[in-house]
Amino acid sequence: MILSKKRLAHIVFESDDWASKTFDIILLFMIFGSIFVAILDSVASLRAQYGETFLILEWLFTILFTIEYLLRVWLSRKPSGYIFSFFGMVDLLAILPTYLSFFIVDSQLLTVVRALRLLRVIRILKLGRYVAEAEYLTKSLRGSSHKILLFIGFVVAIVLIMGTFMFLIEGPEHGFTSIPVGMYWAIVTLTTVGFGDIYPVTPLGQFVSSLIMLLGYAIIAVPTGIVSSEMASQKRKDEKSLGENSCPKCRFSPVHLTDNYCKNCGEKLF
Amino acid sequence: MILSKKRLAHIVFESDDWASKTFDIILLFMIFGSIFVAILDSVASLRAQYGETFLILEWLFTILFTIEYLLRVWLSRKPSGYIFSFFGMVDLLAILPTYLSFFIVDSQLLTVVRALRLLRVIRILKLGRYVAEAEYLTKSLRGSSHKILLFIGFVVAIVLIMGTFMFLIEGPEHGFTSIPVGMYWAIVTLTTVGFGDIYPVTPLGQFVSSLIMLLGYAIIAVPTGIVSSEMASQKRKDEKSLGENSCPKCRFSPVHLTDNYCKNCGEKLF
Amino acid sequence: MILSKKRLAHIVFESDDWASKTFDIILLFMIFGSIFVAILDSVASLRAQYGETFLILEWLFTILFTIEYLLRVWLSRKPSGYIFSFFGMVDLLAILPTYLSFFIVDSQLLTVVRALRLLRVIRILKLGRYVAEAEYLTKSLRGSSHKILLFIGFVVAIVLIMGTFMFLIEGPEHGFTSIPVGMYWAIVTLTTVGFGDIYPVTPLGQFVSSLIMLLGYAIIAVPTGIVSSEMASQKRKDEKSLGENSCPKCRFSPVHLTDNYCKNCGEKLF
Amino acid sequence: MILSKKRLAHIVFESDDWASKTFDIILLFMIFGSIFVAILDSVASLRAQYGETFLILEWLFTILFTIEYLLRVWLSRKPSGYIFSFFGMVDLLAILPTYLSFFIVDSQLLTVVRALRLLRVIRILKLGRYVAEAEYLTKSLRGSSHKILLFIGFVVAIVLIMGTFMFLIEGPEHGFTSIPVGMYWAIVTLTTVGFGDIYPVTPLGQFVSSLIMLLGYAIIAVPTGIVSSEMASQKRKDEKSLGENSCPKCRFSPVHLTDNYCKNCGEKLF
Repeated sequence: MILSKKRLAHIVFESDDWASKTFDIILLFMIFGSIFVAILDSVASLRAQYGETFLILEWLFTILFTIEYLLRVWLSRKPSGYIFSFFGMVDLLAILPTYLSFFIVDSQLLTVVRALRLLRVIRILKLGRYVAEAEYLTKSLRGSSHKILLFIGFVVAIVLIMGTFMFLIEGPEHGFTSIPVGMYWAIVTLTTVGFGDIYPVTPLGQFVSSLIMLLGYAIIAVPTGIVSSEMASQKRKDEKSLGENSCPKCRFSPVHLTDNYCKNCGEKLF
Repeated sequence: MILSKKRLAHIVFESDDWASKTFDIILLFMIFGSIFVAILDSVASLRAQYGETFLILEWLFTILFTIEYLLRVWLSRKPSGYIFSFFGMVDLLAILPTYLSFFIVDSQLLTVVRALRLLRVIRILKLGRYVAEAEYLTKSLRGSSHKILLFIGFVVAIVLIMGTFMFLIEGPEHGFTSIPVGMYWAIVTLTTVGFGDIYPVTPLGQFVSSLIMLLGYAIIAVPTGIVSSEMASQKRKDEKSLGENSCPKCRFSPVHLTDNYCKNCGEKLF
Repeated sequence: MILSKKRLAHIVFESDDWASKTFDIILLFMIFGSIFVAILDSVASLRAQYGETFLILEWLFTILFTIEYLLRVWLSRKPSGYIFSFFGMVDLLAILPTYLSFFIVDSQLLTVVRALRLLRVIRILKLGRYVAEAEYLTKSLRGSSHKILLFIGFVVAIVLIMGTFMFLIEGPEHGFTSIPVGMYWAIVTLTTVGFGDIYPVTPLGQFVSSLIMLLGYAIIAVPTGIVSSEMASQKRKDEKSLGENSCPKCRFSPVHLTDNYCKNCGEKLF
Repeated sequence: MILSKKRLAHIVFESDDWASKTFDIILLFMIFGSIFVAILDSVASLRAQYGETFLILEWLFTILFTIEYLLRVWLSRKPSGYIFSFFGMVDLLAILPTYLSFFIVDSQLLTVVRALRLLRVIRILKLGRYVAEAEYLTKSLRGSSHKILLFIGFVVAIVLIMGTFMFLIEGPEHGFTSIPVGMYWAIVTLTTVGFGDIYPVTPLGQFVSSLIMLLGYAIIAVPTGIVSSEMASQKRKDEKSLGENSCPKCRFSPVHLTDNYCKNCGEKLF
């Protein structure tokens, strides 16, 4: 069975017939399988027992991903464009660590090898290719990104000042050993995570903490308000344009008020 | 007193006269009572003292629920339709465990018996029948379900990468014994639960944790934004259609601006 | 200086001239002062030192509140109406415990006395009289109260099922001693509080916990969405009616588009 | 190179040419550098090693900030206006502590010196000058500030009553040593922080805690709803006025529907 380059490119890049869909499904299984092996490999008891199987599987996955990478480079209309694109980098980073770990034999660098082996989990980013709708959410977030950044800056300023105050009030004897630790505690508290590894002991410290918590409780409303109003505004635009020209699901095909289903994706319209 | 099958079906399936309302109320008391017994039975000190009473009550409830189940099967227009419906399955699951536990005498399987006994709590799902409005909330959630699923997928990807990083940075000596444990910790942190059973100890780990927490704080806005805008959009539709043709409560009967109460459910309109 | 009953009623019930405002301010100071004393009295070291002073102050406050209560009963147009109103009950409950504790000399009942003394803090509810705007917020909450109740019911069902599962999975040896304790843990987790007094230890328990946490993270959006859309809808109504007939602050006086300030409360309109 | 006073004022107060932009960037680096030194100085191990370097750097930064302060006083059109403005106070507070710590030689007051040294972190507030958009967010918050204050008041009342109840139920033997501690715990719980330093042990205490947590979960929706609806309302106003007269980014220049970019700040309009 000889495939033309054009046919092969169709299989790799498209997803509309039997062959190309099979290619995608195999790739999905490989991504999940490879991450699953990496996760199991990190459990000490499982590595002791099945370590070699995991290694063989890992090399198998790496070789298959390498073939996929080379295919994509070869089949791209503009290879350099693919190589330096986001997914090109992800595809490269998904195979590089295993090869690198092969060349390190020095026992001093075993930590590096361990780190490299774990980098395999970024293969999850390869999934991004299949999430067409991600774009929609990203757009909604980007529209309010400078407001969210400003908010995070505001939070960091509060965290700096509160962390310093708590370091001053509680001191190293109650776990607040430095300003960075105080800031770490302030973030843990303001975000309402509250591990409890460090907590105020003095009455004054508990009082200041209470203020931080109430503040955190009140300002959690701000990012939510930002994103909510941004999304509500987009939804209003969508609802307006619905009667005019696009499907609410695929945002692609023009729809008319008299249509019951989108011609493109089959979404029920009313 | 002899009841016709039709009258009995009315009592079991409807809820509009003295007899059928009484049937519903008795059923409600039985559901709550049976769950209450299961809860009390799980408290070691109470089981030691009242264990036998609980067992008798449990069999009483099970027999009554069995009668209810058989009645529903018999009275349904299409028994197989009821048996394989959601509530049919729930009704069966509500009685099966007690009977199964009766046939297990092997002391090896006591854990299974214990599990079966506890399965009784799913009787709470029988309540679903009485929550007509649940449909409204469910619709609102379903309308944004694919966005929420996408968001959960995004969260899982973050959790995988962050859990791996923390496993790498903190290592087994600080409680991060494997990637799954790291992911468990990342979920505990990102959702701002923060048990404190595992927490970062190294400065680098605390720094990365701070980033995760700020991220979790910022992205908690996303599901809220999705649901809020979905609900706001539905509310706008309701407000619009209120003046035109449907009641805001039962969403059934047409209402006019001059009506004060819904003709169907008696909801006060203005 | 002899005051007519009518003048006295004006001082007690109104708040628009020198005398009636002074009465209100003294009452506010007494409420805060009396709660402050109750709080300080609960600190063991302070009670050891200033216990008697606190007792004298407490009797002083109680006598003054008693005078206020009797005045209100005497001056009300319909005394029984006041006595059985919400604030009438609060005013009575604010003085009763101190008198009751006086008659209990039996040392067996000291716990009851302690409880009675602490009941004084409900005096904070007397403040409700001064929060005219509370009504606005309450209305907004009541408008969505049946949805919130339904949601709480849904949460309780999840909590029951999850608490039972965790009791089954983790068992008494990891702190999940009964279903009620499992439900307490499920509430602590689902609401993202996460004390860390009880936490999952087994891998399966940690996995199920992760699901609960992600669920809690996703469904926290629901009450927010309900209240947000309710408030947004009210705000739209307010904005509409602004150009027509009422002030956005006092919601009382009619305003016109050409007015710059509300005639009633002086709120700047544009 | 001799600079006229007018030219110098331009460099200090404006930000539109090479010289004035350089001045701003140097100042930004100084603010971040100075805070960074303060943070590092708080880490015991680093102070032991680099303490003197930190001291020299601190004096260098203080002298430079002093020059900046004097320049601003001298160059302001109305020096007293600047001195008593918010940023005038911040600029003064940013240098005063270092000078004050110089005059304290008494070893008794070392705690004060330590506190003074840490006050340096408020230099972060100097950044406020560069956040033009902060005004927008502040406006949105101020618009709903009295509602948020009312809400905080409501939360404090719940906290007082719940803290007292838990002090009564759990008592000093389970960590609830006084009403203030009970209130601290109630805030930790209601805001869903949940440190776990204090937690209910008795069944009744766990039941009441569960109620507080569900309450906290339900009322977290309120501030979010307030801010969301406020922001949504502002966004609607912005969208309306967009077609009429102002740019959504700089909120300054008038824009017309046929413009693609804002004439003032270059923001892409559609």
